[in-house]
Amino acid sequence: MNPSKIITLTTDFGYSDGYTGAVKGVLLSQADAITIVDIAHAIPPQNVIAAMIALQSAMPYYPRGTVHLAVIDPGVGSSRRGLAVQSAGQYFVGPDNGIFTPWLDDADVIVELHMDNDKNRISSTFHGRDIFAAAAATLASGEDIAELGTAIDDPVYLPIKNPLKANDEIRGEVIYVDNFGNCYTNIRGDDLDGVRVSEITVAGKEINWLALYFAEAAPGDALALVNSSGYLEIAVNRGNAARELGISAGEPVIVKTKTDG
Amino acid sequence: MNPSKIITLTTDFGYSDGYTGAVKGVLLSQADAITIVDIAHAIPPQNVIAAMIALQSAMPYYPRGTVHLAVIDPGVGSSRRGLAVQSAGQYFVGPDNGIFTPWLDDADVIVELHMDNDKNRISSTFHGRDIFAAAAATLASGEDIAELGTAIDDPVYLPIKNPLKANDEIRGEVIYVDNFGNCYTNIRGDDLDGVRVSEITVAGKEINWLALYFAEAAPGDALALVNSSGYLEIAVNRGNAARELGISAGEPVIVKTKTDG
Amino acid sequence: MNPSKIITLTTDFGYSDGYTGAVKGVLLSQADAITIVDIAHAIPPQNVIAAMIALQSAMPYYPRGTVHLAVIDPGVGSSRRGLAVQSAGQYFVGPDNGIFTPWLDDADVIVELHMDNDKNRISSTFHGRDIFAAAAATLASGEDIAELGTAIDDPVYLPIKNPLKANDEIRGEVIYVDNFGNCYTNIRGDDLDGVRVSEITVAGKEINWLALYFAEAAPGDALALVNSSGYLEIAVNRGNAARELGISAGEPVIVKTKTDG
Repeated sequence: MNPSKIITLTTDFGYSDGYTGAVKGVLLSQADAITIVDIAHAIPPQNVIAAMIALQSAMPYYPRGTVHLAVIDPGVGSSRRGLAVQSAGQYFVGPDNGIFTPWLDDADVIVELHMDNDKNRISSTFHGRDIFAAAAATLASGEDIAELGTAIDDPVYLPIKNPLKANDEIRGEVIYVDNFGNCYTNIRGDDLDGVRVSEITVAGKEINWLALYFAEAAPGDALALVNSSGYLEIAVNRGNAARELGISAGEPVIVKTKTDG
Repeated sequence: MNPSKIITLTTDFGYSDGYTGAVKGVLLSQADAITIVDIAHAIPPQNVIAAMIALQSAMPYYPRGTVHLAVIDPGVGSSRRGLAVQSAGQYFVGPDNGIFTPWLDDADVIVELHMDNDKNRISSTFHGRDIFAAAAATLASGEDIAELGTAIDDPVYLPIKNPLKANDEIRGEVIYVDNFGNCYTNIRGDDLDGVRVSEITVAGKEINWLALYFAEAAPGDALALVNSSGYLEIAVNRGNAARELGISAGEPVIVKTKTDG
Repeated sequence: MNPSKIITLTTDFGYSDGYTGAVKGVLLSQADAITIVDIAHAIPPQNVIAAMIALQSAMPYYPRGTVHLAVIDPGVGSSRRGLAVQSAGQYFVGPDNGIFTPWLDDADVIVELHMDNDKNRISSTFHGRDIFAAAAATLASGEDIAELGTAIDDPVYLPIKNPLKANDEIRGEVIYVDNFGNCYTNIRGDDLDGVRVSEITVAGKEINWLALYFAEAAPGDALALVNSSGYLEIAVNRGNAARELGISAGEPVIVKTKTDG
């Protein structure tokens, strides 16, 4: 796979320190003629699922051979492994903590990164800069992913529950609230294929249709739709669903369905 | 007009999700050798005037042929039109909600963007990615703006009140508070041409001169000046005027003047 | 020194206005084929030491000839001078307020920037855009730093206290709290060379070893380590030390040591 020379960054480093600046310096020093793209650096601290969803929103739109460097790393300095993954025509580099869950099953290669202290002048506390950035620069320079480490077949997955389906009902839950207060659930658009939604219940609220557009609901009213990343989402037109409906991650969501016929 | 190959981004998408990352992916996939510049992504949600002022601050400094992509879009999914505007030697792409007001009167062309579902694989909820980014990439690639849609002459303007002038008095109001607490008013530097300011009254405070520098006021004291974007601004030297004077958007500002000469 | 064509930006402009966008426009208009890198724009307002520490984190990883443009500028518009500094194989451009303290002693050249109103169309309130960005673009284009102004030898230093060392004790204090709540002290790794740490006391808490890894402490427990920028840091594994220990800048930190050998 030829590199696109694009490296994206997704971290919880925030915007008030020099940490992303250090990572970018390593990338620019170690890879020629690359384009660095900031996806998001205010991922909620140590929230791996939020980082995964940000990557899911962005990744489909990048050219083949793009490298996605993601550092949300509560386990840094422990025995947590580092990964490089080749999947869906792109590369992923970061900690082995489930952040790349959606791309693991269909991965071409998953590699545990070498952590060679002599070679990489490794800090004990900043793998994002000293291990992952170096690996991303290597991939963006066109080196084979196999050179970065040892192939493994037991990567860590995020423990995201699948929704339960029974008796014309899908029982799921909110897994993420975005910056606008829109509430992502663990129910995917695929789960709704071939069925007709008759009612969605969340936080005592009943929504009796599946919308295509925010504007189908009156301003201030709740709605449910399959969002642009493929998740069933609870939203409020021109409002903040999480705040106005009192929803946070873990809130149960029940979808009543009728089979199309 | 030759493209500068620069595309700027101004949104209210925040910094914790993958939405700007998706937009950047579309731009990099659809236009060659472009430079993407983040202007601001923490525009207060759905605050069109704040986005307009951010663009006014930045736009004059970009090369001819730059494309400014701005997505503050409370009406997404409704019948709200999408626009491409050629004005002042640059391009503007975004929703038709007044965000480009300062560049409409003197525009060379204003085009309503085609929204061709077949051609563009359009999401119902993310026009920033599916409509506007594609249009921006097309302009940055050098295509003629007329190819993007149909010329119109009735774009939406922001309902910004003009200040009232009478009896050696200009009555305006605060329209925006920036990140430092500086308070932009709807009174422009042009409104003060040929007159001498004798007093500025805001929130019960009287300021009796028009400053050129913040440091003309003692630390902690209020001042008024025409800011670097041409707006009359109320500020506090080394302080936060909005907080310390209790000012927010809508606060009346009265300027007493004496005619020069 | 050949320019790397990279210009980094560190400011307290935030992410909701057009000010960084204006600076980037100047850079792209005045220098060809440059790469602009955002280090951080949410430096706490007017906090010069925070900006200095962000630069210290990032700067070592950039190629020779990189230009670091930093604008945290409480004294803008006063008689405060502007500086360009060549040091450690890189360039620094910004206000003369101590922000470049770590690079002053070993600087090859320190230049007071010309502020020529005729030549530069200077705003009274936005030197970041009108003076510093122009100087950074000039350096990135390969011009000699001496062309930018007059060499000086009395730059402003930040008044950071050195830790006091006596009787097997080093007495320092917290000088900065980062985005994760980790507390930087004015005690450097160098201060601990050749000694063995027996106890660190901060906010009534006793930590009785110097860690290499966060994960040496149990989750929720406090630890002390020399961080990736060389500062002795107080942290909480998987937690926020500043919040959980009630620490802010100025908090005393006492290190008891035993001389090795």
